[in-house]
Amino acid sequence: MYPIKFEDLIIALHRLPGVGMKTAERYAYALLDWDPSQIKELQNAIKGLTELKRCKVCGNLSEGEICDICSNENRDHSTICVVQTPKNLMTIEDLNEYEGVYHVLNGAINTQKGILPDQLNIDSLEKRIHSDVKEVILALDPTVEGETTSLYLTKLLEGDVNVTRLAYGIPVGGHLDYTDQKTLSRAFEGRIKSK
Amino acid sequence: MYPIKFEDLIIALHRLPGVGMKTAERYAYALLDWDPSQIKELQNAIKGLTELKRCKVCGNLSEGEICDICSNENRDHSTICVVQTPKNLMTIEDLNEYEGVYHVLNGAINTQKGILPDQLNIDSLEKRIHSDVKEVILALDPTVEGETTSLYLTKLLEGDVNVTRLAYGIPVGGHLDYTDQKTLSRAFEGRIKSK
Repeated sequence: MYPIKFEDLIIALHRLPGVGMKTAERYAYALLDWDPSQIKELQNAIKGLTELKRCKVCGNLSEGEICDICSNENRDHSTICVVQTPKNLMTIEDLNEYEGVYHVLNGAINTQKGILPDQLNIDSLEKRIHSDVKEVILALDPTVEGETTSLYLTKLLEGDVNVTRLAYGIPVGGHLDYTDQKTLSRAFEGRIKSK
Repeated sequence: MYPIKFEDLIIALHRLPGVGMKTAERYAYALLDWDPSQIKELQNAIKGLTELKRCKVCGNLSEGEICDICSNENRDHSTICVVQTPKNLMTIEDLNEYEGVYHVLNGAINTQKGILPDQLNIDSLEKRIHSDVKEVILALDPTVEGETTSLYLTKLLEGDVNVTRLAYGIPVGGHLDYTDQKTLSRAFEGRIKSK
C-alpha cells in the first residue's frame, strides 16, 4: 500500500545487518524527514564507498592506491600483522600499541562456504615476504575458519619468516570459573614463566 | 583513522534513529560487502525518496499528484480520517476496516517546539470540508500534542461537519489493575450502554 518508491527504500534498508522490516520502515520514515542537504550527504557517502579502493600492498580500505599505514615511513615495515577484515585492523589500531604494518585477508578459509585460499588476499602476502620482513603475526578470529587459515598460513610461510600468533588465554578481568573449557585448556598450553 | 569516504558514510548512517556510531560502523562495513547491484538499488531508492510527492488532496505519500487512496472511487469520500503521519495512516489501513479517506497533518501542534497550526496541513483540510463530507474522524496520538490538535480541529470544524474522535479506554486483553489512571478515567467517561 506504500508508494513503490517508498517500498523500494524499505526493502533496500532491510538488507542491512540486523534490520527487520519494522526498523527499515522506521529508517525510511526518518529519511523522509531529513533535510535535502543531509540526503545529499548520504548519497555522496554511498557514492564515495563505491569509489573506495583497497590498498595494493595490504588490502586495507584506502582513498588512494596505497593506504595511510603502508605509506607511513614511521611504521615498522618488518612486522606484518595478518587480519581477516579492515575492521579487525581498526580494532588493533585502536589499541595504539602495534607499530608494524598489516595484511588484510578479506575473510578466512571456509570450505563449507567454498572460500578457499585462492579467494583470499594471500598471494600478495606471500609476495611481501622478503629478507626485510622479520615477523608475521597471525591475528585471526579464534573460530574454526580463523584457526584453519592460521594453520594454512603457518605452513605456507614458516621457513621463510618467523610466524607468530596471538596468545589464547583467560580474558583480563575474567573469572576462572566462567572461562570455557577450550579457552582454559589453551591457557594451560600457553602458560608462561611467572615473574 | 578510517579513509574519509568511509568515515563520511558512518557519520551519515549515524543520523538514522537509534543508530549509534558502532551500529553505523557495522552498517558501513555491511554496505562495503554489498554487490554493486544492491548498492545501485539503494542509491535509486534514496533518489526515489527525494522524488516522492505529497498527495495534493490529503498530504499522504504519493507517486503522483493524487495518492492511490484519494483517487480510489470505491472509497467513501464522505468520511475523512485525520492522522498525524503517513505511518499512522498505514497503521489504520493495515486494519482493513476503514473505508473512508484520510488527511495527513504532518505533525501535531507543539507550542514548545514552535509547531503552530499554520505549519500543519490544516488549511487544505478546511478546504476539503463541503456538503458531501459527513464526518471527520480525529485519529491523533493520545499525547498532549495530539490532544491539543484534536481540540483545535474540533473548534475549527464543528458546525461545518460532524467531528468525532477515536474512543479512549482499556486496551482489549489488558487488565484493569494495570491500566493507568488517566486511561481508566477516560474509560469511565466514555462508557457505553452494555448490550
